[in-house]
Amino acid sequence: MYTINPNIESLYCIKCGKTYPLADYYLGCPQCFHKGENAALSFNYNSLEHNPSTSKGIQKYSETLPYTSLPTLGEGNTPVVKHEALATQLGLKAVYLKNEFQNPTGSHKDRMSPLVIARALELGKKGVVVASSGNAGFSIAAYAANSGLQCTVISPRTISNIYRTAIESTGANLVILDAEQDTTQGRWAYMQNLVETQDLYPATNYILPPVGSNCFGVQGYKTIAYEIFEDFGDSIPEFIFVPVSRGDLLWGIFEGFKEIHQLGYIKVLPKLICVEPFERVTQVLKGADYRSRFQGNYALTGSIGGNTVTYQALKAVQESGGDAIATSQDDVIASVKAFSEAGVYLETSSAVTINALKLAISTHKLDKNSRVLMIATSNGFKNDPSIMR
Amino acid sequence: MYTINPNIESLYCIKCGKTYPLADYYLGCPQCFHKGENAALSFNYNSLEHNPSTSKGIQKYSETLPYTSLPTLGEGNTPVVKHEALATQLGLKAVYLKNEFQNPTGSHKDRMSPLVIARALELGKKGVVVASSGNAGFSIAAYAANSGLQCTVISPRTISNIYRTAIESTGANLVILDAEQDTTQGRWAYMQNLVETQDLYPATNYILPPVGSNCFGVQGYKTIAYEIFEDFGDSIPEFIFVPVSRGDLLWGIFEGFKEIHQLGYIKVLPKLICVEPFERVTQVLKGADYRSRFQGNYALTGSIGGNTVTYQALKAVQESGGDAIATSQDDVIASVKAFSEAGVYLETSSAVTINALKLAISTHKLDKNSRVLMIATSNGFKNDPSIMR
Ligand SMILES: Cc1ncc(COP(=O)(O)O)c(C=O)c1O
Ligand SMILES: Cc1ncc(COP(=O)(O)O)c(C=O)c1O
Ligand SMILES: [Zn+2]
Ligand SMILES: [Zn+2]
Repeated sequence: MYTINPNIESLYCIKCGKTYPLADYYLGCPQCFHKGENAALSFNYNSLEHNPSTSKGIQKYSETLPYTSLPTLGEGNTPVVKHEALATQLGLKAVYLKNEFQNPTGSHKDRMSPLVIARALELGKKGVVVASSGNAGFSIAAYAANSGLQCTVISPRTISNIYRTAIESTGANLVILDAEQDTTQGRWAYMQNLVETQDLYPATNYILPPVGSNCFGVQGYKTIAYEIFEDFGDSIPEFIFVPVSRGDLLWGIFEGFKEIHQLGYIKVLPKLICVEPFERVTQVLKGADYRSRFQGNYALTGSIGGNTVTYQALKAVQESGGDAIATSQDDVIASVKAFSEAGVYLETSSAVTINALKLAISTHKLDKNSRVLMIATSNGFKNDPSIMR
Repeated sequence: MYTINPNIESLYCIKCGKTYPLADYYLGCPQCFHKGENAALSFNYNSLEHNPSTSKGIQKYSETLPYTSLPTLGEGNTPVVKHEALATQLGLKAVYLKNEFQNPTGSHKDRMSPLVIARALELGKKGVVVASSGNAGFSIAAYAANSGLQCTVISPRTISNIYRTAIESTGANLVILDAEQDTTQGRWAYMQNLVETQDLYPATNYILPPVGSNCFGVQGYKTIAYEIFEDFGDSIPEFIFVPVSRGDLLWGIFEGFKEIHQLGYIKVLPKLICVEPFERVTQVLKGADYRSRFQGNYALTGSIGGNTVTYQALKAVQESGGDAIATSQDDVIASVKAFSEAGVYLETSSAVTINALKLAISTHKLDKNSRVLMIATSNGFKNDPSIMR
């Protein structure tokens, strides 16, 4: 059994600010939910401290995580790599990658899964359930298998054979639902039913508009900010490009930096750039309601697909002084190649950050003196080889 | 440009002991080659010291590497993970994995490539050439691309689409040769010609019997031993299981531990267990000539395939007090599943170590009090999904 952090004071709503006692709120903030303004909850800790422990991986920062001990498969502590050739080619002062694809299941999701599993075990659940286009599903399935928990992964029919095989090899139950990605009739209803009747703990969201994934899990992404701070000290790159679907990753990184800022270790927050496959957050920044449904093509980048926006994604962009950049499906394969020719093989949904970076340069959102870090979220071996031909 | 280690005294033959001035000897020890007793060269350093630097990854141990500065994609510093459930299931005291599949290109080869590339750059070569069933080829291709060197990868027709796509995405020139894996007429002759006429630096072996890969590169594997020592101190697991093809990895790990032993930090060497797809080193331990050709099936485990043995593999087993264990192709898929159900998704050629471990237990080569570490060499997303069905 793993140890809950005694330093947790309460949960709070990232939109209305209302606080709640430590518990599970699968619908995000109950108050906002009832107003139809779905928004995620996050954690207040009694005191903020930064005393990294000698533990490995994300447990090094467990003072600021919901659990101070965790199951592990070797997640976290990913390298930051400086790419001189990319910087020269793009005409920027410095370009860095944070290699999240080097996590045990090949994506950043491995920072979320240990927390979700620790929580499910503490609650005495018999298993977990996750709705996923691939990465979250495979990560949760691997950690569940490792901890002896059952796992159900609910995926759209578009999921590739590569992900299917990986997920099923863990012993997880893969359910393919024909329904459109996020509708209350389709995947969401199916998942809600499992949570309510089958004693399965939800790793991801099942309401519309979505609030984001399990808030215990999302805390895990704060460790990316702490690791970046350990690498750069107070000279963190000004811009951090993050591929976004639900915005769990974006929000977690934002919260980490906010804590580091509150601790007084950095003077300004890095600007978080939300990279998306078509205009979603971009539309909201221009005035659309964040609860709208957005239409666009994401066929080649299923891992950052979907027709919705979360409040957490919006808030991370706005409060960090960042921006959203919509990429184009026409440039997906070129993006994979651009990274690969620099020695980094990424999943399409991750590679499009370079597409976004080029757009940001050409539209003068950043200049030649900018230092940029891209979160390289997922491994290229997850690409279906046929799309690359 | 990268810096050669000023502490290199000479090269030496691991078989006859003859020393040579620092240079490139593509045929291994010239003296042994002329006697038809092909054997690899290794490095003598003026002084052995263990003062890990504050550098990241394998450069932390650059005092004991041929180059003290190196190109990097974020290799090394891979986690060791303790697997309680596997230990219980197998009836062993402790089971650990060293997660080499978390390297940037998804295998241990990333500890070799930076050294090969550094050497090629110092020699002013226009590119590199590598004969590979997949992992070495993709790793060298990625590092070559990153450093702006040309790269030719020579692979057998059996190479999967997954590897093909990855290798070609770097811009490398992939040459498929129909010839049997290692014959002087086939891949080897082709490679030798590129080395001699095209100014390409060889990352891997091209003579028969093989001596192993480029000896500058093989030194990189010593860092695995140093990292294991950093994790365990003087209580290193008694048995280390290593999947073997040419034995570069096995030999490099052995040399690392030998250095740590000479430094007086450990009292006994861990026993290195050579895991192979059918009896090769196993036959040599029973009396066969190491220069023989061995027949057997390795269709599902191409990355540890081939019909030959290297002197370095044999010597690492014998001098560490280890052994060789031949696995069976019948158990390959079960091995992948066994690891996956513990949350670790591995390439077939890597997963068979659990098959070997079970055989070692059932034949009483190790007992219930044994502590075992397996080198988890490569990522399961490299498996062709069709083999898992
Ligand atoms: C490869 C990849 N990158 C980025 C993301 C975005 O994550 P989030 O849903 O936290 O925005 C995902 C999510 O599935 C992903 O798989
Ligand atoms: C997955 C995997 N494991 C192990 C090995 C063995 O490496 P070596 O040739 O150094 O014995 C290889 C080599 O290609 C490999 O690809
Ligand atoms: Zn609220
Ligand atoms: Zn010799």
